[in-house]
Amino acid sequence: MNYPNGRKRRPLQRVNREIKNHKYSNRGMSLEEDINTTNEYYLAHNQAVVHKKPTPVQVVRVHYPQRSAAVITEAYYKQASTTDYNGLYRGKYIDFEAKETKNKTRFPLANIHEHQIAHMEQIINHGGISFIIIRFSSYNETYLLETEKLLPFWYDLFKRGKKSISYETIRDEAHLIPLKFQARVDYLSVIDKLYFTK
Amino acid sequence: MNYPNGRKRRPLQRVNREIKNHKYSNRGMSLEEDINTTNEYYLAHNQAVVHKKPTPVQVVRVHYPQRSAAVITEAYYKQASTTDYNGLYRGKYIDFEAKETKNKTRFPLANIHEHQIAHMEQIINHGGISFIIIRFSSYNETYLLETEKLLPFWYDLFKRGKKSISYETIRDEAHLIPLKFQARVDYLSVIDKLYFTK
Repeated sequence: MNYPNGRKRRPLQRVNREIKNHKYSNRGMSLEEDINTTNEYYLAHNQAVVHKKPTPVQVVRVHYPQRSAAVITEAYYKQASTTDYNGLYRGKYIDFEAKETKNKTRFPLANIHEHQIAHMEQIINHGGISFIIIRFSSYNETYLLETEKLLPFWYDLFKRGKKSISYETIRDEAHLIPLKFQARVDYLSVIDKLYFTK
Repeated sequence: MNYPNGRKRRPLQRVNREIKNHKYSNRGMSLEEDINTTNEYYLAHNQAVVHKKPTPVQVVRVHYPQRSAAVITEAYYKQASTTDYNGLYRGKYIDFEAKETKNKTRFPLANIHEHQIAHMEQIINHGGISFIIIRFSSYNETYLLETEKLLPFWYDLFKRGKKSISYETIRDEAHLIPLKFQARVDYLSVIDKLYFTK
């Protein structure tokens, strides 16, 4: 890849961060990569317009070298105030978050932040389609759980101290997303069944 | 403001960048600030859920100090592949870009990138509401121009070498957005008239 200053550079530290993220926050890159690939496929085939939002960064210091692009020399990752993905499908607003866990028995609710839950609630109140994509990486199973179903778990279980949803509950309540060759996480096939066949 | 490393710091370079942006790309911060304030007002009054997307940054190098937050030590601004704002209003997907110009006679089309035009076209093809907000800062006038009206200017004029839209054309074809005390750029009042009264 070429950076604006003309040098070629392997973003090694970025790879390290991805590994770190994967280990400590259960946010694996492979689910994210699969969803990005899926969204590119949907866009190329004129099925939907869905993009991942950029990671929010608080820029503190920028250096302006002569005759080359501005270099950010000090910045910090910020917590996202909304979800990672949103877009447009069959005339409807869709909005979702994606989380991966290595846990074999439960999905930890601490993976989702309170302001993200608030955002997801606003979306359904305003007539949008909102859901979460959950991957159990040990089983390579990816599920779609509607926000309407997630909220009772969040309010009832989380507030009583049960900080996770069991794998069995996800398997029973959520919808298994077919993994395909091109649309690797074909979530629109689930959306079709849930929201467009009535 | 407190940064994750616990120091207080005035982001001076950031202010410089804002001034620089304002000068060289006609992207003033005040329109952006006005729209952000307006969106906060809409959200607080349960009218719409619209957020600005984070500025995309290509992170190259990250430092992980012990016992404190990761510091990005080398990163570059990337060009946005979509528009700056999107969200949900009255069950509909809305998506827009905002541009400010100091020019008194014309709005330079070079302010909008080709892939942003492609994105805006995809949005209307998929049934979303797409538009651009243009401020002539010399007159303190802010206009909403639907993508359906922008596209012919882009294709006909831009490709023939006319790289701007005249102020008079904007005044005639676009819709003046009322500037209010709280919803400073009350664009939803225009959206109501254009899309919800038929």
